[in-house]
Amino acid sequence: MCQLLGMNCNTPTDIIFSFEGFRRRGGLTDEHSDGWGIAFFEGEGCRLFLDYLPSISSPVADLVRAYPIKSKNVIAHIRKATQGQINLANTHPFGRELWGQYWIFAHNGNLTQLPTLNNARFQPVGSTDSEQAFCWLLDQLAQQFTQAPSLPELRNALHTLSTQLAQGGTFNFLLSNGQALFAHCSTKLHYLVRQAPFCQAHLSDTDLAVDFAKETTPNDRVAMIATEPLTDNENWIAMQQGELLMFIDGAPQ
Amino acid sequence: MCQLLGMNCNTPTDIIFSFEGFRRRGGLTDEHSDGWGIAFFEGEGCRLFLDYLPSISSPVADLVRAYPIKSKNVIAHIRKATQGQINLANTHPFGRELWGQYWIFAHNGNLTQLPTLNNARFQPVGSTDSEQAFCWLLDQLAQQFTQAPSLPELRNALHTLSTQLAQGGTFNFLLSNGQALFAHCSTKLHYLVRQAPFCQAHLSDTDLAVDFAKETTPNDRVAMIATEPLTDNENWIAMQQGELLMFIDGAPQ
Repeated sequence: MCQLLGMNCNTPTDIIFSFEGFRRRGGLTDEHSDGWGIAFFEGEGCRLFLDYLPSISSPVADLVRAYPIKSKNVIAHIRKATQGQINLANTHPFGRELWGQYWIFAHNGNLTQLPTLNNARFQPVGSTDSEQAFCWLLDQLAQQFTQAPSLPELRNALHTLSTQLAQGGTFNFLLSNGQALFAHCSTKLHYLVRQAPFCQAHLSDTDLAVDFAKETTPNDRVAMIATEPLTDNENWIAMQQGELLMFIDGAPQ
Repeated sequence: MCQLLGMNCNTPTDIIFSFEGFRRRGGLTDEHSDGWGIAFFEGEGCRLFLDYLPSISSPVADLVRAYPIKSKNVIAHIRKATQGQINLANTHPFGRELWGQYWIFAHNGNLTQLPTLNNARFQPVGSTDSEQAFCWLLDQLAQQFTQAPSLPELRNALHTLSTQLAQGGTFNFLLSNGQALFAHCSTKLHYLVRQAPFCQAHLSDTDLAVDFAKETTPNDRVAMIATEPLTDNENWIAMQQGELLMFIDGAPQ
């Protein structure tokens, strides 16, 4: 199994503090050391950093810590391999383009049954169940909508498709097109919304705290989504089995 | 206009030495300071590093210098914007998936006339002529071949399509699917093949030399492709106008 981290905000924000705790689970405070990756949307563009080294010792993770990229939608993943070798092609998040938008996907879980992808427009490059599920999702969306639908239409379509895929195993995932961040809970996913009045947060995985009141403006709103809560003094909300949330501007819809 | 750098090898090789000269053209020895990017194929996977900062001062470029990623196919680009704003979505190289393979593309030149992309499978995310040309190329390939053809078939198809696009302007480009690196010359592109007996090479853009005899094995073969020669003591070959070369295992086909 793996761990997921997502961020969705109403103003471009860096993820340095949360990433500092999250990366420790990749080889230090937890066993997820079979590679990691993080994607940052910046406007319509997207940067995807991948490494098959553990996130705790990866030079790419050092860069992410030292270079505070500001983004409204971030998806990160640390891997504990279930299906597929440990190599770059099997490292999450995965990316594709649909309707002139970049789409980024990361999965926690294990799907033992999956629909086939005969002649599908999107094909996996690696050998994970996760990438196959992502390709199937996008292929179904492309068949249903010839151009980008409204975000509520997308949410409804994704909920139906996710429910179908979740019948084949465990399917917690994060997905974003840079406009919204979709989070599907099959077994385990938590979130919280930080907004004014901001307070101090303290990481669970290391003795590090930040006072968000000093780092933010009163209008900022940031949603964090993670497999396991990242801080030990904030009220993380456990998502329900089968729930799909669409986060826009830092708020769940 | 921009500058291109490509590497194709028969064994995974790092590009540190050449990149050291190339990145200086992004804001130090030349004016190409409107962003840069580099893509490394590793097996079937691909890492794409992008930054809209000049390559000479980019933290991501510092990472690439400090972290010697070994790859058989590398494509890099430093941008001097002609069409499209300076932002991440317009930063080369661009990436897409076709036939379960990642495809990476970077362009030097300016296309003032381009075929339209009505209902095309691949759509640009940004606003450059370059990404539009890339999407059209892939769309045409997808229409011609439902699955990956042989590399000679690919070369022939790409030559025909490139000739057609080059009628709309200047179209020097590098393209790779991780198996071969395709280089098309419209006005300016140089290459050389390094193989045994290896000798010392000296960069044009800074006083740095490397003795490849000490860094290689006798079986290694590395092709370098660049807009302008990167070294001042090797025999770079100027490609001909309208020429398309397919590099496999460090040799032009």
